[in-house]
Amino acid sequence: MRQGKTFIICGPSGVGKGTVVARLLASNPNLYFSVSATTRQPRNGEVDGVHYHFLSREQFQSWIAEDAFLEHAEFVGNYYGTPKKYVDAAMAQGRDVILDIEIQGAEQVHRQRPEAVRIYVAPPSWAELERRLIGRGTEDMEKVRSRLERGKQEFAAASSFDYFVINDTVDHAVTEITAIMTAEHCKPDERIAMIDK
Amino acid sequence: MRQGKTFIICGPSGVGKGTVVARLLASNPNLYFSVSATTRQPRNGEVDGVHYHFLSREQFQSWIAEDAFLEHAEFVGNYYGTPKKYVDAAMAQGRDVILDIEIQGAEQVHRQRPEAVRIYVAPPSWAELERRLIGRGTEDMEKVRSRLERGKQEFAAASSFDYFVINDTVDHAVTEITAIMTAEHCKPDERIAMIDK
Repeated sequence: MRQGKTFIICGPSGVGKGTVVARLLASNPNLYFSVSATTRQPRNGEVDGVHYHFLSREQFQSWIAEDAFLEHAEFVGNYYGTPKKYVDAAMAQGRDVILDIEIQGAEQVHRQRPEAVRIYVAPPSWAELERRLIGRGTEDMEKVRSRLERGKQEFAAASSFDYFVINDTVDHAVTEITAIMTAEHCKPDERIAMIDK
Repeated sequence: MRQGKTFIICGPSGVGKGTVVARLLASNPNLYFSVSATTRQPRNGEVDGVHYHFLSREQFQSWIAEDAFLEHAEFVGNYYGTPKKYVDAAMAQGRDVILDIEIQGAEQVHRQRPEAVRIYVAPPSWAELERRLIGRGTEDMEKVRSRLERGKQEFAAASSFDYFVINDTVDHAVTEITAIMTAEHCKPDERIAMIDK
C-alpha cells in the first residue's frame, strides 16, 4: 500500500480556501484533514476532536516539550498547533493529509518535513481579492486594506512554495489541487520502490 | 496566455506507451505530438509531416550543423531526430508538447532544456512486461529476453526522471500523465508572473 503524503495549503484571507478544502474533502474520502489543537475555549457547537483538539495550557505546553507538534504558535493569549500523531497515523494508513495553516506554520513544518508539499492558493488578482473581502461585508475598509497588505506580503514569502493554485473558480482550484496530489505520488522515490518489488 | 511545456515520455518496449500517448492526444486537442525527422525511406501509406518529416541525408546533416534538433541519433544507417522548430512553435501557441523518444534522446533534450518534464512509463512488474512482450507474438523468446534486459537497464538510467507512471491500466496511466501536466503548470515561476500582472 502506498504511504500518504502531507499537503500544506496556505492562502490569503478572503481567497476562498475554506470552500476549496471542503470540496476536496467531499470528493476524496481518503483525504485526512488535520484538526488543530488549541487552548482557547470551545464555542457553542464546537466538538472536541472535530473542530479542534481542545487542550489545557498545561497539556499544550507539555506537548510542546515532547516535540509533539509539527508547528505551533500563540495568538492573542491562546496556543494553536498541529499535533504530529494524527497526521502520522493517517499517512501510515495510506491517507493523504491536508494541513490548512498560516504561512508561518508552513515554514515550521517545512523545516521539520521538507517532503511536505506546499500549495499556495492565490486570487486571480489583487483587485479580485479586494472585491471578495469587501463582498463578505464583515469588515470595514481599514481591515480589508490591512488583510490585503498582509496577503501581498505572504504572497512574496510563498515564492518558495511548490505550487500556486489560482482560485478563479472553485472547480478549477479543486481540479488543480487534485492533479497536484496525483502527480506527487508519481515521483521516482515512491514509484521505483513499487516496481523493484 | 500560458506558455506550453514539453513533456518527454519514455518507456520500455512493450509497456504500451503508444496506446497511452494516443489516448492523451485524443482527449486533449491542445496537446501537440512532436513528429520526428528521419532519413529513412517512407513506407507505404506514410505521409510526410504526419508520420515523419522525411529529409535527405544532406538536409538532415545541415540541420544538425544549424543546431536545429533537440536530439538526434543514427540507427542502422538512418538518422532520426526531433526538430526544434515545430516544438517551439507549438509551445509559443500555448500548446503542451509530447516527445515520445528513446532514453538516450531524453538525455540529450534534458541537457539542452532541463525544464522539459521527463516521464517514464513503467510496467507494473517485469513479469508483466514479459507477458506483454510474449503476448504480442511478434518476436521469438531470445528477442523478448533482450528487450526485457534493455528495459531494466533503461529503468535504472531513468531514475533521475521527474515522474514514473505505472501502466497497469491505460485509464490509470492517462489520468496520471494528465495530472502531471496540470500540476506542472502550477509551478511558482509560471504562476507568480500571472498574478503579478
